[in-house]
Parts: sequence; C-alpha cells; structure tokens
Amino acid sequence: MLQNRYSGSMLLSIVDLHSITVPQQQQELRQNIIDMTACLLGCGIDTSKTIIFQQSMVPYHTELAWILSCICTIPRIQKLAQWKEKQSKIKEPSVGLLTYPILQAADIMLYKSTLVPVGEDQTQHLELTRDLSRSFNRLRGVLFPECTILLGDVGRIKSLRNPTSKMSKSEPNDKSRIDLTDSPDVIKVKVKKAVTDFISQISYDPDNRPGVSNLIDIHVALTDLSHDEVVEESFLQAEDTSLYKERLAEVIIEKFSPIRKEILRLQADKGYLLDVLRKGSEKASTIAENTIKDVRQYVGLR
Amino acid sequence: MLQNRYSGSMLLSIVDLHSITVPQQQQELRQNIIDMTACLLGCGIDTSKTIIFQQSMVPYHTELAWILSCICTIPRIQKLAQWKEKQSKIKEPSVGLLTYPILQAADIMLYKSTLVPVGEDQTQHLELTRDLSRSFNRLRGVLFPECTILLGDVGRIKSLRNPTSKMSKSEPNDKSRIDLTDSPDVIKVKVKKAVTDFISQISYDPDNRPGVSNLIDIHVALTDLSHDEVVEESFLQAEDTSLYKERLAEVIIEKFSPIRKEILRLQADKGYLLDVLRKGSEKASTIAENTIKDVRQYVGLR
Repeated sequence: MLQNRYSGSMLLSIVDLHSITVPQQQQELRQNIIDMTACLLGCGIDTSKTIIFQQSMVPYHTELAWILSCICTIPRIQKLAQWKEKQSKIKEPSVGLLTYPILQAADIMLYKSTLVPVGEDQTQHLELTRDLSRSFNRLRGVLFPECTILLGDVGRIKSLRNPTSKMSKSEPNDKSRIDLTDSPDVIKVKVKKAVTDFISQISYDPDNRPGVSNLIDIHVALTDLSHDEVVEESFLQAEDTSLYKERLAEVIIEKFSPIRKEILRLQADKGYLLDVLRKGSEKASTIAENTIKDVRQYVGLR
Repeated sequence: MLQNRYSGSMLLSIVDLHSITVPQQQQELRQNIIDMTACLLGCGIDTSKTIIFQQSMVPYHTELAWILSCICTIPRIQKLAQWKEKQSKIKEPSVGLLTYPILQAADIMLYKSTLVPVGEDQTQHLELTRDLSRSFNRLRGVLFPECTILLGDVGRIKSLRNPTSKMSKSEPNDKSRIDLTDSPDVIKVKVKKAVTDFISQISYDPDNRPGVSNLIDIHVALTDLSHDEVVEESFLQAEDTSLYKERLAEVIIEKFSPIRKEILRLQADKGYLLDVLRKGSEKASTIAENTIKDVRQYVGLR
C-alpha cells in the first residue's frame, strides 16, 4: 500500500467538486461522499499516515484553479484527449467539463505534491499540471515543485460488460463493475455474467480474448499468483470459463469479505465518518493555506 | 449617489480576481487595489452605508463560480459578444477570459444582489447571471432572487483618443481617460489633446461629431447643465473648440480637485486603506458565507 511505501505525507481527496461536472442528485452525492470515506477506511487507509479529506471543505482549491485558469490558454486545454472525447459525446457540455483539469492541477499544486498516483488515462492531465506549475514559476516566481506521475503496478481493470473500456465507478451500469460492498451473491452473479467469448478453455490473451483476460487480471491483482499460474491452475483443474468464473468469484468474495464487513460497520457510524472528513479537511486546509497565501503574494493579490 | 438612493445594503467589490484575466505585474496589482480603495472613498463612498471589499478576500467567489460553471454550457458562454470580440483579438486567450462572466455571476449571486449598477456593455453578462440563477433554482431548489440591471443616468463616456470606444481604465494609453488623481496640468493637456474634428463651433451631435459630443457628455455628467445649456453657453461666449476645451478643463479640475485632494490624503495612509478592505471583506464574507452554506447543502456537498 502506498501509505506504507513512502515516507512523505500522503493525501487522499474525495473530489466532490469534480463529481458535479456531471449531474448529481443532492442526496446521492451526500451519501456517496460518506460511502467513499467508509470504503477508503475499509480498505485500510490509516488516518494517522494518510490525510483523507473532502475537496470542497478546503476553500482554496477553486481559488487556485481560478488563478491557474488565467495562465492556461484555451488551445492548451482544448487539446486534451478527454475533452475531445467528451465534446464529441455530449451535445452541450458544461464549462466545468472543459475546465476541470485545471481544478485537478490546483488539487495537486495546492499541496505541492510530488508523486501523483493516477491511472494512465490521466497522463495528459498530469502533463497539464506540470505545464501550469512551470508557467506559474516562470511568471510569478518559483513556488511549485515538479510533480511526477506514479502509475499503479496493476494494469487497468476493464469493465465486466465491455472488456475494452475501463472498469469505472462513473459507468451507469453497475453490472460492469464489482463494488467493495457487493454481497457474495451479487459478486457471483456479476462474475458469471461477465462478457467473455465462445472458447471454453482459459487463456491469457488481452488482444484477442479481452473478456477472459480481464478476469485473469482481476485474479492476479487480488492474489499473489501470476497470469501463468492462474492459467495453469485452470488447466490442471480442467476448468471451462463457467467453472473458472465460479473460482474467481470465490477469490473475490474471500478478498472483499473482510473489507466489506468493515465498510458496512463504518457506514453504520455516519458521525465517525463525518468526523474523519472534518479532521482530515482541517489538516489539509492547514497545508493548503500556506500555499495559497504564497500564491496570493506572488500574484499580487496581497 | 446610489448609496443614498437605496435603503438596502450596498456592496462594492474591488475585483482583483477579474483583473488577472489579463497579465498583471505583482507590485502594480497590489498598488492598484489600494489606489482603487482610495478612489472609492475619495469619491464619497461611506463605509457605514456601503461595504467596500476585495473580491479575493472573500473565499467563496471562486467556489460558487466553479459550481455555476458546472451548470453553464459552453455554447451559452461562447455566444457572449465580449468573448467573441476578445477571441478575435487575442491569439491564445486564457481560460479565464472565457469563463470570467461566470465569476461575475458568482459575484452577484453570492450576495443575493437584486440591483446591479453596470454599464450597457454588461447587459449580456447580467442576462447570463439571471440564466444561471434560474437554472440553479430549477435544478437545486429556489435560492437566488432575480437580479435587475441598473443602468446609470449618464450615457457612456468615450475615450478621449478614440471617441467611438468607451473610456476605460484598462485602455493602455492613459491619455484616453481622465483619472481622478490627475493634476490640473495633466487634465488641461488631456482635454486639449482630446480628439475632436475640424469644425470649430461647438454642437452636440454624437453620430457625426463623436469627439466634441463626448466632451459635452463629460461636461453634463459633472455639472447640473443640460446638453443644450452647455452648447448655448459656448455659443454666447463665442467659443471655438480650443476655448471650449479650456473651459471644460476648468470644470473638470474644479470638480475633481477636492476628490483628488482626498484621494492623495488617503493614499498616504496605506494602513487605513488596508483596514477598510479587511473590515469590508469580513462583512462581505459574513453575507457570502450564509449563501455558500446554503449552496453546498442544495448541491449535496454537505
């Protein structure tokens, strides 16, 4: 776990301000913030090592984002691949959908972050952050360190319904993913219904067999086994896809069961979760306040 | 003066966050904030009736702007005439230059403002504010009142160098405008050099004689005289443009002299000006905080 691998302070932000770039129901958003906190804690995030905070509780994210938006050009932000993709899909995109990578940059720069663990699809956004840091340092005086992307060890897990696109919490079809709070029965059904192909034997071949290979990726991510070992075991047990799915479901259930139990326990204690967020956000604010005070000085606002 | 004409509370914001949508020098921006405060007080703004505050000292402007940017569509903001004009002039405009009307909307909505005294060129931006208020009220619950534009009594004063565009503090050529702190000698020179035409007699005809008509507009704005009275007096005194300019310069000097004196006095007391801003910003923050707390609830961030 990252929190045990690095000596510096680590921050985990629940990015509620980003979530509203797409329509959100009030009650649902509020619940999601609480649930996300429970999930992070349930997965073993230790608040003595890691600051968990709610983005909107630190009032400086949008302030720095605004300041950065005055040094970021329109062509620079329009060339981001995610924007091009969204623009082509959504008829009347919101301004937030265009500008949120600037808020992301502020999220990173506000804490003078040096290592940013994100998925590969965020590489361009990290590059924007680095550009904006450099521009600020050049125009206003050196304040921000260069940040580096920290790509995960595990390849990107794909959707169970469409194994060529990534598994995502923002995908409307919840059968496309396994949630940490899914019951054993739900996990069994989701894995059983995962899209595979018509070859019954198990083999790892992401290009030609994305569905089965994705299941093996999940298997590898949750155990100490290698891809070869998973395939070999399946061969030895003469499993077809259906039997392999049953075995994988058990692996997932076993791995998720203690986490799920802890998450459910935490979810029952909303006061505690809100307290974690409040305290974390206070700690984050203290760091962020130091940065924003310097930013204001450097820009001439104070 | 507006502060004496309306019973409700009045706020005057020094919009430093807007000023950085174009490049600003750190020292200059800092000085401009102080100078603007001195000017407002020197013109008779009474801090017991009007809250003068510095926009960036109230941490909620950019937060509300971000929330509004998630309900404002790109086509909606791109159709604003000021953006079209800027986009055609500036090669690589900043994101801030596109999105600042949303920050303007936040500036207004944060105080649930109902009357907004702006120039005619801001009509479209007020319309955007009204649209965003309505959208928020419809999507999230009724929170914001409808605001109304309050156009000044005086027609728009034009640049002394180019009487078809408006007189503006953001125009680089300072001969294009008369500043409140200009000395009598500077005022005489600026008026003398104001662009007029080759007809020596004074007449008011904005379409065909924009230069002279602009001078008469300034005259009318600073005195109790009507346009006809200014022209008539000029006729009676057999003034040509040059003589009329001398008379107008005296009118301006007389009107500005006590204001200038007061501004210079205030500028010498930087501590007092900073204190005015600090106290005003605290008062503004109290109002803004009430609104933003509701906004967060309505959106589901709390």
